[in-house]
Order: sequence, then C-alpha cells, then structure tokens
Amino acid sequence: LVEFSILKDNWHLNSGASHSDTILGSGDDAAVVRVPTGFELCTSIDTMVEGVHFFRGLSPELLAYKLIAVNLSDMAAMGAKPKWAMFSVCLEEYDDEFIAKFSNSLNSANRRYGVELVGGDLNEGPNVFTISIMGLLPEGLAMTRSGAKVGDRVFCSGCLGDAALALTKLTSEQELSIDVFEKVLPALHMPVPQVFLGQRLLGHASACVDMSDGLVGDAGHIARCSNVTIEIDINKLPLSDAYKLYMQQGGFLRYAVAGGDDYQLLFTISPDKVAMLDNIATDLDIRLTEIGEVKPKAEKGIFLTEDGKETNIRPKGYQHFR
Amino acid sequence: LVEFSILKDNWHLNSGASHSDTILGSGDDAAVVRVPTGFELCTSIDTMVEGVHFFRGLSPELLAYKLIAVNLSDMAAMGAKPKWAMFSVCLEEYDDEFIAKFSNSLNSANRRYGVELVGGDLNEGPNVFTISIMGLLPEGLAMTRSGAKVGDRVFCSGCLGDAALALTKLTSEQELSIDVFEKVLPALHMPVPQVFLGQRLLGHASACVDMSDGLVGDAGHIARCSNVTIEIDINKLPLSDAYKLYMQQGGFLRYAVAGGDDYQLLFTISPDKVAMLDNIATDLDIRLTEIGEVKPKAEKGIFLTEDGKETNIRPKGYQHFR
Repeated sequence: LVEFSILKDNWHLNSGASHSDTILGSGDDAAVVRVPTGFELCTSIDTMVEGVHFFRGLSPELLAYKLIAVNLSDMAAMGAKPKWAMFSVCLEEYDDEFIAKFSNSLNSANRRYGVELVGGDLNEGPNVFTISIMGLLPEGLAMTRSGAKVGDRVFCSGCLGDAALALTKLTSEQELSIDVFEKVLPALHMPVPQVFLGQRLLGHASACVDMSDGLVGDAGHIARCSNVTIEIDINKLPLSDAYKLYMQQGGFLRYAVAGGDDYQLLFTISPDKVAMLDNIATDLDIRLTEIGEVKPKAEKGIFLTEDGKETNIRPKGYQHFR
Repeated sequence: LVEFSILKDNWHLNSGASHSDTILGSGDDAAVVRVPTGFELCTSIDTMVEGVHFFRGLSPELLAYKLIAVNLSDMAAMGAKPKWAMFSVCLEEYDDEFIAKFSNSLNSANRRYGVELVGGDLNEGPNVFTISIMGLLPEGLAMTRSGAKVGDRVFCSGCLGDAALALTKLTSEQELSIDVFEKVLPALHMPVPQVFLGQRLLGHASACVDMSDGLVGDAGHIARCSNVTIEIDINKLPLSDAYKLYMQQGGFLRYAVAGGDDYQLLFTISPDKVAMLDNIATDLDIRLTEIGEVKPKAEKGIFLTEDGKETNIRPKGYQHFR
C-alpha cells in the first residue's frame, strides 16, 4: 500500500486542523490520538462510489466536500465533536489538476470543521473514496436512535427534499424549471453537516439521526430502535422557497417526505425542552421545525398525517441513483 | 448508504469479539467506544482492491482473512492491542455463498485477535474492501519508525520472501517447482499478523515497522524517519525451507531482500535488550533473527552487506502485481 506521505505530497493534502491530542499523525504505520478524560471516542466510516453515490465527472471540489460532509454528518447525529479522519482512495488515473482541486477542497473543509487528517492510503483502482472519522463525546451523552419517548416532539433542521428533487432532474426522472433546479442543486452537492447543532442538542435531544435515507426512512430508524411510532404531519415539513415554487408548478411532496441525501438532523425532544430550541436556532442561524410527535408503538412505525388525519400519500422509497 | 444492520444480517457478520469498553456498537449513526485511562487510541485504514491487491476469483475466506490481517499488522507494528474495526465494502454483485464464506472468515479472525466489529457500510460497486481498525496503546509507548539509535541491532520476525516468491508464479514471472510453490503460497494468502509480538516489544524495541513493502523498502522507512543508515547482512536473512529449496534450484535472493507482503515485523533494539528476545520468541513460538545494525547516517539509507562487505545484489523494487 502506498505510503500516506506520498499521498500527502502528491495530493497537496495537509492535516487540515491540528490538535494537541494528536500524539502521532500520518507517516507511520498508524496514527495515535489521545481521548481526554471524561470523553468517549465516536467513530464511523462512509464510502462514496462513482456511479452509485456520485456521477462520473462531478467536480473534484464537490466530491471532496461531500465525502467529508457525509462523514461529519454522522458525527453530528451523535452530537460528537469531529476531531480526526483517515482517507482511503482508489483512483483510476492520476490527474494533477483533479488531485490539486480535490485536496484543496478537502483541506479547506477539514480546517473549517476542525478535522485533522491523520492517515490514509492511496490505491490504483476504480474510483472509490472512503473516509473514516473520529470525534469526541462527553462521557455517557451520545445521542442514539433509541432514546425517543412517547410524548416527545419530533423536529428537523433546515429544509427537506431539495437534494432529492435536484437528483430527479440529473437522473431525468422529471424536468424541473431552471428557477427550481438552480436553487435546489446546492443541497445535493454541498449539504451542510449539522455538527454544531448536534453538539448543542447533546444532553437535550432524546434521539437523533442524520437524514441520509430520507425523512420516512430515517424516522423509521428512530421508531424501530426506540420501540415507538413516530407521527409526522406532512403539512408541517419545512420546504425551501424553491421547493414551494416546484409545488406550485404541479410538483410532488414525496421528495420532502421520503427523498434522501438531506443530511439534516431529525431529533426527538421532550416537550419541556422545546423552548430552548429557539435560542439554538438563532445562535446557529438555522431553521428548526416541529413536524410530529412520538406515539406509543403501533402497527406502523411511521404514521403520516395531514392536519391530524392519516394521509393518502404513499411515499416512494428512496433509491440510490444507479 | 446501506445500514450496517442490513450488512450484518445479510452478511452473517457478527461482532467478533465483545468488549466492555464498547459503549455503542453497530446499528447507529456511529460507534462509541471508551479508551481507558492510561491508554491512547491507535488507528489505521487499509484498502484491498480487486486486480491490484488480490486476483479476481480469490476465495472469499482468504480475502476476508487477509483484509483484517493487513490491518492487524499495522496495529502490531505500533505495539497496539487491536480492539475495534469498521468494515466498508463495495461489491459488484451479491452472491449468498460468497457472503457467507467471507463473513465466517472475518468473524473468525476477529474473534481470534480480539477485534469487535462496530460499524461499516455496504455499497454496490467495484470490488473494493476497506477496514479501519482501532487499538489501544499504553500512554507514551507507541513504537514508531523514528526511534532507531546508532548501535541498535536490527531484527525481523518469521521468514522473508515467501509471499513475494509465491506471487512470481501467480503473475507468471517465473516457474516454481510444486514443492516450493505449495509451501510459500500460505505466506501470501494467510500472513500471520504479529500482534502478540508487537505488544511484547512495546517499551523495548526502539523502532518498528511491519513489512508490507519488502525488507529494503520498510527498513528504509525506519532509516529515513530515524535519520540513520541501516546495515543489513543478506546472508543472515531468515529463509524458510521452501525458499532454501528454491535457492538450491537456482533461485534468487531478491524476493527475501526486497519482496513485499511479508507482514513480519522489522524492529531495532538496543544491544542490552537483545537477550530478552529469546524468551519472547519461545513464548510466542516464533523466529526472531538478527539481520543487521543501525549505523550513523550515510549517503545510503540502507547498506546491504555479505559477511561485512558491500554486496553486489541490486534488489528489484517491489511492485504491486497489476
């Protein structure tokens, strides 16, 4: 396996952030990091495959950004503060321009989110990009999928459905007016990982996931793990102006209900803590919307309503675009 | 990205080992683990690509074994005790038999080496397998590449060159007698990661690497990082009986000198600690061989000798077999 030092040199990769808790960064057989007393280590891994998670020809800047963003989103969902990452890449051919642009974009995102790159490897092969990420969590506070309690309110961050809507045009599933398409495309290409929100929710939200599979799918994870039913009022879903315009043009709500790739957080929180969310939303300049409630476990894990009545909408399940 | 729970169910993967320091295993957005007081976290990532690191058609058992073994070998080189792993896979097509065999082999290796699988993802795509691994190191004791001191003795574990020799037949670089081939093939397919040796060397060896690039290449890493020259007596290299037979049949020493994929440890140790190695070798039932000495930095980072004189051998650099 090619030395990471070569990867760094040839790729113009740097460490991104730099942490005093890094004992040994890249350049040895493994990295060594210190987890401070009172903290736990939170870690996940995500892979992006050409033709499955992104189209061939996607700009290297967007590719690198999204690769780290989807990993950061996992940290956000747990409430962890991201600290370190390792990067493993297979690339069909070397192209200096691709590499320079990819590296600059990854370096920049790493600095912005406080991630230090501590290792990785470079391989010849089909275009597959993997990052494994590590973050810190105060002991015992991890936000899991299993803590939702009956009576908790269900919230999501940001707007839903823009990324999935953009994808429908890229896959020729439907035409979109240029007004709509241009405004929803950034949600697909440059999702903003909600790491700061995740950390603010720590100790307050009862359950949390990041929405990569789509609202219904990801709410289903909380419902299943928490052994509850989640009722969602589809009239309350936060929609962007562009999505509303699309609806006015005869569009469908299903991409907001069940489209994937939103990378917003979906969380449950007890009613007495709802008031604090205003401050968080203001501090972080984000939108937090109450969209439902946690109910006792029923036949269906997810119960969609419109103004309190069961809806007729049958959300189409999200599929990757291959 | 497909849920790891699906990966586990469809793949018959289990957690392998089970640790009390695992706060949250697979099935959430990320795993959470505890690093006990007095320890540091050691981590690395390795990818295996079909056609680059292994041939298409390699049995799933051998593939899974080698994937975890090369990762364990990185832990061994640092002296870390492996604890947790995450597994990310791209697979062209699902085949129940492949999956069952792969999973059984990975489960079994994980149990054997005390590794708990705490996450991962499954993707459609070209055959690419990645593991990121985490282990524990007593604070401040990591064996790096940079600690070799002039006068230290150079040791390696096991025998050298068998894996590279086996590869020459698989790539049709040369014919091998069946006696030789059958006996060297396991070194290529089932390298034994020296994790127990690594932990025993902790606090004693001054520098250590695992030999994936080949003796000369990996000794070069220590020489460069430690700012020394490493002198190796090629007459002292430990050879298997099969390799010796190959030499008698007119073979070359170069695969032992510079072939890759050995996954043995190469380490330096001060002369006053050499005596303790006998006990370690006996306890672990492995071979430890003194093959050279650390010298002041000279023009060449690696100096190959035969009975004290510079040798004429010009090792051919190791190349992956694509």
